[in-house]
Amino acid sequence: MPAHANPIPAAGEALVKVRLAGICSTDLEIVRGYMGFRGIPGHEFVGEAAGQRVVGEINAACGSCALCHDGLGRHCPNRTVLGIDRRDGAFAEFLTLPLANLRPVPDKLTDELAVFVEPTAAAFEILEQVPLRPQQEVALLGDGKLALLIAQVLRDRCRLRVFGKHAEKLALVPGVETTTAAPEGQFDVVVEATGSEQGFQQALSLVRPRGTLVLKSTVAASSRLNLAPLVVNEVTVVGSRCGLFEPAIAALAAGAVDPRPFIQAEYPLEQGLAALEHAARPGTLKVLLRP
Amino acid sequence: MPAHANPIPAAGEALVKVRLAGICSTDLEIVRGYMGFRGIPGHEFVGEAAGQRVVGEINAACGSCALCHDGLGRHCPNRTVLGIDRRDGAFAEFLTLPLANLRPVPDKLTDELAVFVEPTAAAFEILEQVPLRPQQEVALLGDGKLALLIAQVLRDRCRLRVFGKHAEKLALVPGVETTTAAPEGQFDVVVEATGSEQGFQQALSLVRPRGTLVLKSTVAASSRLNLAPLVVNEVTVVGSRCGLFEPAIAALAAGAVDPRPFIQAEYPLEQGLAALEHAARPGTLKVLLRP
Repeated sequence: MPAHANPIPAAGEALVKVRLAGICSTDLEIVRGYMGFRGIPGHEFVGEAAGQRVVGEINAACGSCALCHDGLGRHCPNRTVLGIDRRDGAFAEFLTLPLANLRPVPDKLTDELAVFVEPTAAAFEILEQVPLRPQQEVALLGDGKLALLIAQVLRDRCRLRVFGKHAEKLALVPGVETTTAAPEGQFDVVVEATGSEQGFQQALSLVRPRGTLVLKSTVAASSRLNLAPLVVNEVTVVGSRCGLFEPAIAALAAGAVDPRPFIQAEYPLEQGLAALEHAARPGTLKVLLRP
Repeated sequence: MPAHANPIPAAGEALVKVRLAGICSTDLEIVRGYMGFRGIPGHEFVGEAAGQRVVGEINAACGSCALCHDGLGRHCPNRTVLGIDRRDGAFAEFLTLPLANLRPVPDKLTDELAVFVEPTAAAFEILEQVPLRPQQEVALLGDGKLALLIAQVLRDRCRLRVFGKHAEKLALVPGVETTTAAPEGQFDVVVEATGSEQGFQQALSLVRPRGTLVLKSTVAASSRLNLAPLVVNEVTVVGSRCGLFEPAIAALAAGAVDPRPFIQAEYPLEQGLAALEHAARPGTLKVLLRP
């Protein structure tokens, strides 16, 4: 990592000393050029500001547009996004975020748990968009780090079946039924979190008529898709991204979600490039960076 | 058209004498091989059964599966579909349909109006899936025959703007604001009814974050799509197909929807091939067939 000067907080912003950061698949896409971002990547972190341990919502909104007024600052068209869009990120000693974005971390949340607040919030976003009932048949496609977090969030809320290719990864989420094949058109809800180009079409084949497909993967490349089954079966597709931090903090504090088994390596910040290389190896789950 | 023997109604079915049929874009796709259908196409019709004028819902459901029990016979996996899937259609002197599919036609609905009940129901399906409020900004993409019907259905229910390429067609739906360009990401709801491969991506660029994209086009060919904006902006995509007949019959009878200006030609059944050729010419609206 090249040396950077410490960032200077603007009015209303805090300087946050990073304690621990996590590498997400989006970071790997960004390093490959996604979003055209030039700057320091990293948006999963736990840090310290004004003597307190904090996590931070990554979308820094303008606060004055129509979407901000509707409480949807995560979609503010003027926003910067930590480590993703015009705001240096968490793979550094310090970062800046608006004070309004920071959330205090309860004492019982260790740094190793708190660093998962942001991706856990992304998993909880599914429940905010698509309320699940216990009787519903839900398929989750994928066994990467986000998919396993989603499995932990959904497992007690519906009849969940996880479609994954790696038995050793699926074993990290006990109490979840796993499979590699299932009859087509049977699931009320299908969550696509494979991060692969083929995931969408497989999800579309699994969802029942009038069912819901939740799309979590931002596969940056374009792919060849046939949307006719979506129309014929009147499927609803819900794009799903960042979520609110509060339910994520509560679930991690209560132990309902425990992603510590997903941690496979921790690198000091100076070995950031080696850490990214490790995280990019196929099948790798969570790699952490400690400044 | 080759000569066919008259169809024989099964138990619980009626023999319907076709009075007038309409050619839909789906028929043109079917003639080109979509759905692998071998038989007589045609699913828009008004006919006569047991001395009464009738229209008919095109999905002949099994009545005993889980979807049928949920009132979603239109999605029954065992269904046949008139002129589309394992059931000869309306481009003939006679057709058969289950008695439960037939709806009597009010006297004030002429045949020229009643033949539009099925596509008008498909337009109303949007309202069943996505309730619209008067203040909502809605974009409709397309100016083909289905798009113009949708414009008539939506125009009094929201702030509608229609994106079309043909001023002479848009002029057939008075009272609707039309345009060829608009700022991106501003519309609460976007209805894609272009029938073209480019429509989906344009619709995705027009819808606001957390907005809804209603997909009406069953573009049979696969196309290259980038779904990342769908995830990043948390857009909901709703596939939309056939609708309930009751609201369509009521709106046509009340004059709220009047598609008669869309009729551009009527052919006798014996000239069916010429009629299909006419309907396939670019820019053609509705072509009718009269046995």
